[in-house]
Amino acid sequence: MTVSYDGTAYNGFQTQPGKNTVQDQLEHALLRLTGEELKIIASGRTDAGVHAKGQVINFHTHSRIPVERFCLAMNSWLPRDILVWDAKQVEDGFHARKSAKRKTYRYTIRCGKYIDIFRSHFEVHHPAPLCVESMRDGLKQLIGEHDFTSFCSTKTVAQSHVRTIYDAWIECEPMDTELQSFAMHIYLTGNGFLYNMVRIIVGTLIDIGEGKRSSSEIRSILEAKDRSLAGPTAMPHGLMLWKVFYGEEPLRP
Amino acid sequence: MTVSYDGTAYNGFQTQPGKNTVQDQLEHALLRLTGEELKIIASGRTDAGVHAKGQVINFHTHSRIPVERFCLAMNSWLPRDILVWDAKQVEDGFHARKSAKRKTYRYTIRCGKYIDIFRSHFEVHHPAPLCVESMRDGLKQLIGEHDFTSFCSTKTVAQSHVRTIYDAWIECEPMDTELQSFAMHIYLTGNGFLYNMVRIIVGTLIDIGEGKRSSSEIRSILEAKDRSLAGPTAMPHGLMLWKVFYGEEPLRP
Repeated sequence: MTVSYDGTAYNGFQTQPGKNTVQDQLEHALLRLTGEELKIIASGRTDAGVHAKGQVINFHTHSRIPVERFCLAMNSWLPRDILVWDAKQVEDGFHARKSAKRKTYRYTIRCGKYIDIFRSHFEVHHPAPLCVESMRDGLKQLIGEHDFTSFCSTKTVAQSHVRTIYDAWIECEPMDTELQSFAMHIYLTGNGFLYNMVRIIVGTLIDIGEGKRSSSEIRSILEAKDRSLAGPTAMPHGLMLWKVFYGEEPLRP
Repeated sequence: MTVSYDGTAYNGFQTQPGKNTVQDQLEHALLRLTGEELKIIASGRTDAGVHAKGQVINFHTHSRIPVERFCLAMNSWLPRDILVWDAKQVEDGFHARKSAKRKTYRYTIRCGKYIDIFRSHFEVHHPAPLCVESMRDGLKQLIGEHDFTSFCSTKTVAQSHVRTIYDAWIECEPMDTELQSFAMHIYLTGNGFLYNMVRIIVGTLIDIGEGKRSSSEIRSILEAKDRSLAGPTAMPHGLMLWKVFYGEEPLRP
């Protein structure tokens, strides 16, 4: 199943004792629908406040509900901030996390004087000017296979910090002349992301955009393998798990 | 001042005993800022659940805060679903309602299979197909000076039901191929709008788009001056007070 959610009201994706999570809501809806206590497998967890446009989950069910009816049936049991918009029957060996080949994350910054109140749960406001060209330069240097220790929370439990970024780009929406602001979307596609990796990359790019650092520093930060050299961890609510790839689909729309 | 608000959490714009309204929030912020108990005048009220991108308000203050500092100062006292994004000193005779020459409202319908959960507070979902061309035909017939009795709540207290629509058009965003849906924005600019007028016009256009009525019926509905002949009142949360005009600015951006 492919699922969108607004993470604002949830303690992240993954079930935690005493917390309200997206996984709990999905498993509860599945229980109502199938009568089975199913455990879902997701492509990965998302932190509290982080959103998803295309999170992917899988589960094994005995239900005889035809797969083409699953989306609407699930949505009737889900709160309005979670939406299932695709459901497919897959081969038995499919595993939403292990079978994932690539993932795209999107991070959105509202640049300029005023926030857009209709999107403020999904955008981080940055009133000071940012140089997009320097940020693009910095971002380019992350493409390829690197050890991302410097761009990863020290709390990580991952054994290897080597990941590949296949593509990374920045899209700016046209300026809203009344609000004197525009949305900047930073997209990153890779074979996997370490704990807080996108948010630390964005925090570092913001430093570059503000002129606090030069874009050429990215290379030396990567080489140093030292979290303290990268920028701060950007706020969670600008982040969205955009798409998970299981085949060789094109990276950009 | 020009103000945006997300009307979801409020009982409409105008102060009512025991209710939480946008006007209360604005007057409370002004009290904190100026120390004065000011009564604001708005270009018009909006109903519960209705939003505004460019509501205009005015007030008379003795405050010596420079006008260019008012926006940021106000926003620091306002909740995050209300934003002041413009402030100007105006001549003494200015009256946000009486001086308004035209107003634009926008109504948004999410057409297609799935809602966009990131915009669901501001869009009304319509899963059944709509014929946009018939809706455009129907909308065109509303342009001009007409008696809008048929498109007005019977609860209205307005003496005259004659209003002029200067311009009205429909914009469709590109299809989101994953959600299999798109946003349709209906814009109406007029010299004034009666109680529920935009929502009844939209309800009637939806009937036309569904093929329940022909677009040519608009003329006979107008002529009959009978509310029962028009369509249902569309839901409030798709409606947004878009812009208020005090001069002769161009109608479309």
